[in-house]
Amino acid sequence: MRTRFKPWAADLMKAHPEILIPNPEQQKGKWHEVFGNNNPLHIEAGTGKGRFIIGMAKQNPSINYIGIELFDSVIVSALETILEEEGGIPNLRLLRVNAKDLTEFFEKGEVDRLYLNFSDPWPKKRHAKRRLTHDTFLKLYESVLPENGEIHFKTDNRGLFEYSLTSVSEYGMLLKYVSLDLHAGDPEWNIMTEYEEKFSKKGQPIYRLEAQYQTNKA
Amino acid sequence: MRTRFKPWAADLMKAHPEILIPNPEQQKGKWHEVFGNNNPLHIEAGTGKGRFIIGMAKQNPSINYIGIELFDSVIVSALETILEEEGGIPNLRLLRVNAKDLTEFFEKGEVDRLYLNFSDPWPKKRHAKRRLTHDTFLKLYESVLPENGEIHFKTDNRGLFEYSLTSVSEYGMLLKYVSLDLHAGDPEWNIMTEYEEKFSKKGQPIYRLEAQYQTNKA
Repeated sequence: MRTRFKPWAADLMKAHPEILIPNPEQQKGKWHEVFGNNNPLHIEAGTGKGRFIIGMAKQNPSINYIGIELFDSVIVSALETILEEEGGIPNLRLLRVNAKDLTEFFEKGEVDRLYLNFSDPWPKKRHAKRRLTHDTFLKLYESVLPENGEIHFKTDNRGLFEYSLTSVSEYGMLLKYVSLDLHAGDPEWNIMTEYEEKFSKKGQPIYRLEAQYQTNKA
Repeated sequence: MRTRFKPWAADLMKAHPEILIPNPEQQKGKWHEVFGNNNPLHIEAGTGKGRFIIGMAKQNPSINYIGIELFDSVIVSALETILEEEGGIPNLRLLRVNAKDLTEFFEKGEVDRLYLNFSDPWPKKRHAKRRLTHDTFLKLYESVLPENGEIHFKTDNRGLFEYSLTSVSEYGMLLKYVSLDLHAGDPEWNIMTEYEEKFSKKGQPIYRLEAQYQTNKA
C-alpha cells in the first residue's frame, strides 16, 4: 500500500507508546501484563490502516488484539483512528515490525489466533516464498500459536486463494471453513478491511478460509 | 437429469453387453481381463450422457475408463454416442449401477482414479449425506482406490465446492490442486461435461479439485 510520506508520522508514533509498543521484543512472553488481563490474544499480520483489527477489537472486548504492520505510512493511519476513539480501545495494540520476525515478539502458544487479510498475492511463481501462506510462514505462525491454533485468511485474489488452499493442506492443516463468496451470505460477524469494501463493491468475490494446525500431521 | 422416457432404451442396452456390462459384480477383481490389458483404470461416478468419460477415453487411449450411471434415460445416450464412434472406443465401458455399491464391482486398489463431475449439490443441510463428497462416500471410494489414490472433482455449485473442500480435508486427504475458475486458464487437457459447457458459457466459474488419500491420516 502506498500513501504520501508523512513527516509528522514518526513524532506521532513516538508520542503514543501505550498503543504503538516500542521494543516489543521486551514484552515477549508477558503480553498479558501489557493488556492487564489473561484474555486470548489474536494478531493480524499486515494490518495496514487498521480497519479490520480496530473493528474486531471493538466487536470483541474480551479478546486482546495486536495489529502488526511494517510501513509507517499506513500504521500511522491506524494509530490516528485509535486516537480518535473516545476512551481509546483498551484491548488493542500496534507493532511496527516485520511479520517474518514474529518469534522475536511472541512465545510458542502466546498467540491464540492469527489473521491474514488481503496480503500481497505475489503472483509470479518465483515469488511464491513471499506469499504469507507459504510453507515458511505457516511454520513461523505455528511457532507462536498453541497446538491446534488457527489462521483465518481473507483475500479477493483467486490465485492466492487457490495457492493457499493447497499450501495449508500440504502443511497438514485442517480446513475448517471455506467461503468462496463471503459477501453472498453477508455474515454479520464479518469485519471488512479497506480493500475488502472496495473490491466487494465491484462485485468481486471475497474468499475466506479457516485452517487449523494438527497435532498429528501426516 | 431428466429426459423423456425412452421405451427402446432397454432393448438397445441389452443388445450391447460388450459396452454396457451386464452383471458387473462378476468382473470384480478382473477388469483387466475385460479390457484385455493391464492399463490403469479410471472411473466416473455419475456419468450422465457420457460426454466427459467418452472425451477422456478418446484423449487417453492407454487408460481404461468405466462410466457409472444409475439412470437408463441418460446412460442410453452415452451408449448411443459410443456406438456412433467409428471403430468404437475400446478403452471404455459403462455400468448401469448405483455408485454407492462400488465395492460390489471393484476390489481394493482396482480403480486408479475416481472422477466426480457436477454431481447433485443437495443444498439442504439434512441431505448432506447424499452429497458425493460426504465422508461416507469418501470412505467408499477409498475402499476401491489404491493407497494414495485420487479423486478429481468438478462442479459449478459454490456451496457444494465449499463443502467438498472441508469434507476432503476433514477426511485427512491432501488437496493437491484447486481451481476456482477452471476456464480462466482454459486448460487444453480439460474435457468438458454437458453441464460444464452450458454453465461456463453463462460466465459462471467452474470449480475443480484433486484430492489424494493419505496413508498416515491425522
